[in-house]
Amino acid sequence: MDPRAADLLSRPLIGQLGFHGLDGYPRVIPVWFELRGGELVIASPPATYKGHALSRDGRAALSVSTAERPYLIVSVVADATVERLAESERIELVSALALRYLGPDGARLYLDVWSKEGHPGDGELIRLAPRKIRFSTS
Amino acid sequence: MDPRAADLLSRPLIGQLGFHGLDGYPRVIPVWFELRGGELVIASPPATYKGHALSRDGRAALSVSTAERPYLIVSVVADATVERLAESERIELVSALALRYLGPDGARLYLDVWSKEGHPGDGELIRLAPRKIRFSTS
Repeated sequence: MDPRAADLLSRPLIGQLGFHGLDGYPRVIPVWFELRGGELVIASPPATYKGHALSRDGRAALSVSTAERPYLIVSVVADATVERLAESERIELVSALALRYLGPDGARLYLDVWSKEGHPGDGELIRLAPRKIRFSTS
Repeated sequence: MDPRAADLLSRPLIGQLGFHGLDGYPRVIPVWFELRGGELVIASPPATYKGHALSRDGRAALSVSTAERPYLIVSVVADATVERLAESERIELVSALALRYLGPDGARLYLDVWSKEGHPGDGELIRLAPRKIRFSTS
């Protein structure tokens, strides 16, 4: 991977997940994600629209970009898989993502509400296996 | 349109444009855009990948979201058209977009380089006619 792409993907920038909607139109939604072992991983509640759509058609894209010029952009085209995420693993992943995006204090406040007294239930893990990763500036 | 969606679309937040790539995979790219007469308009150089792809399949999405919690999100599903944008209209639109995203001083610096001494040439206008506009928070 281009080190500039790896650097940008490691910053706490919101991922913009693109997929084919159930009506055939594309969709773009902002997600928390993390790079793990060459894949981009996303934690999802069960039975979401994106989970249904990606289960049916795993063709996906994820982009991150900076908010200010010069715009640094990473565009990933990927194959997605959606699998059950047991509660304990879900807590681990969401905790890691909250820390990445909100910092220690923000994560604590977030997880206090999110975890439902330690029992958020099972969720879904969306894994994106990259086919292409492109770095650009604009 | 939900006034919360209209408000968010009027802020200088980068649009995340989703479309079907020529290989059948989705693509997401960051774009400057503006709401004009109920449509979202994007200025493009000629002969870009997104222009080709949207000419072939006009099914599109555009999302904006805030960078900090609570995340405010507008997701638009739209039909796109791509048409030639004559130089004079291109200068007008890019000037308006630069002002919207960069402010007066930033726009001046940007346009000095972009305009190629007043002759940037023709471009393309991408117009998104919304089918659905959804406001959400996360």
